[in-house]
Amino acid sequence: MPMNINTYLAEHCQRINSSLTKYLPESNTTPQKLHAAMRYSVLNGGKRIRPLLLYASGETLGAKPELLDAPAAAIELIHCYSLIHDDLPAMDNDDWRRGKPSCHKAFDEATAILAGDTLYNLAFTILTRSPLSAEKCREMLTILTEASGSSGMAGGQALDLTTPSDHLTIELLEQIHHLKTGALIRASIKLGALAADNITETQLDHLEKFATALGLAFQIQDDILDADEISEHKINYVSFLGLETAKDKLRQLKQQINEQLGYLDCKTDSPLQILTQYTLCD
Amino acid sequence: MPMNINTYLAEHCQRINSSLTKYLPESNTTPQKLHAAMRYSVLNGGKRIRPLLLYASGETLGAKPELLDAPAAAIELIHCYSLIHDDLPAMDNDDWRRGKPSCHKAFDEATAILAGDTLYNLAFTILTRSPLSAEKCREMLTILTEASGSSGMAGGQALDLTTPSDHLTIELLEQIHHLKTGALIRASIKLGALAADNITETQLDHLEKFATALGLAFQIQDDILDADEISEHKINYVSFLGLETAKDKLRQLKQQINEQLGYLDCKTDSPLQILTQYTLCD
Repeated sequence: MPMNINTYLAEHCQRINSSLTKYLPESNTTPQKLHAAMRYSVLNGGKRIRPLLLYASGETLGAKPELLDAPAAAIELIHCYSLIHDDLPAMDNDDWRRGKPSCHKAFDEATAILAGDTLYNLAFTILTRSPLSAEKCREMLTILTEASGSSGMAGGQALDLTTPSDHLTIELLEQIHHLKTGALIRASIKLGALAADNITETQLDHLEKFATALGLAFQIQDDILDADEISEHKINYVSFLGLETAKDKLRQLKQQINEQLGYLDCKTDSPLQILTQYTLCD
Repeated sequence: MPMNINTYLAEHCQRINSSLTKYLPESNTTPQKLHAAMRYSVLNGGKRIRPLLLYASGETLGAKPELLDAPAAAIELIHCYSLIHDDLPAMDNDDWRRGKPSCHKAFDEATAILAGDTLYNLAFTILTRSPLSAEKCREMLTILTEASGSSGMAGGQALDLTTPSDHLTIELLEQIHHLKTGALIRASIKLGALAADNITETQLDHLEKFATALGLAFQIQDDILDADEISEHKINYVSFLGLETAKDKLRQLKQQINEQLGYLDCKTDSPLQILTQYTLCD
């Protein structure tokens, strides 16, 4: 029976949300305000694209679902922590997040800083205490720490903040995206695969290339969808390349993505195939 | 030959500082400003009391020094990250740290938030890639994550920020210290011991009690030394208990500390004994 993407998304989002709900500390335990802020910032109807990719990658390569819960929750918590800190007044100064007041508006700045810190902590806590073997846990932590540190996600945010818009080149824009959002996308795909037994270096290499193209494709697709709203202050692929060239680049990336999926010998109805086609909707 | 505490401190501080220097990303690598802020906030002449305790505990229990370098650096980086975030305007709003402008004054708030985040990341990175076995690494990560998260150090800071001073009781004051500063002290002592082979549950239990008493003793000792400068706005052990009762409590704690060291069968010239006597100077 072919996989139904809507059923797949509903089932997996439920699994992700219920495991996040379980892992997060209760709001009625001390320190209550901090715990309330952590829950508020995670259990807010996010799209869960990173953990979905992680499950899809793991399931496609034969990992047991129960080994995917911890890394999937960890990657989503790291994403949530980064959003809280990025929203702070000193950073992007965003008062809204997913249609609700951002953490520092709903609580206060000090609580938001600490909520980000403790969600980051919780990601490592969950992975460390997961049913994964110590070796697997260590391999995954190596990927997660690299993806989120100063040469990954946080480094991308730093680069974004310190690059004056008149110094921005297409290469620099790509490097910022590669780190700021791409690093966690790549980590999601790799963590899922690592939960499976006997993953080869060749497979990991194809997954890395697939994930790199996918992360960039997401970004360009978003920029194309936002093209109507572009202001001259917002610099992105469309404002840099023009709409048609951006669409061309997206088409090339989709081709690369399918090529890599082909090397991975993914069945056309594998979760990774189906989720990829769904997220890169035409 | 009896151990000379000055030589011991000099040698170990040098070892700690040179390993931190090596682990920290170079300031001339991208993102340069972030990397410069990380180095500025760590390589600033800190007393290194946590890694010193970690080495002393490990060496006393027979751990190989080369297995102590990674956890010692990790614990100091977590301490430094917490200082950067605690100093932020939204938190304790401290413009100075160890006689120099605090990170957000020397750089800017956004960079300080990210420098804290990435130093926290670096702590886990270093431990994950250390020469420790995967099992040992996992045990240590369990301790480090618990000590620094919302039920440890960060939770203590949250509790400190949200407790109005007229609601403060001696029990609450003790709970805040137990988490905010005590958790990392306890972790330092335990991580050192875990690097040794064949540590028993009984030994860990004595170390936990020793470290709990030591952390509290440090705090009360600081409060006694600061007694001259007490303002009515600063609530601590001396302002709560009065100077004499605080001194009594410190004496009791020293007795507990020595008792636990006795159970651990520490030689009187063991690093842990000597360092303890040195830090709890009369």
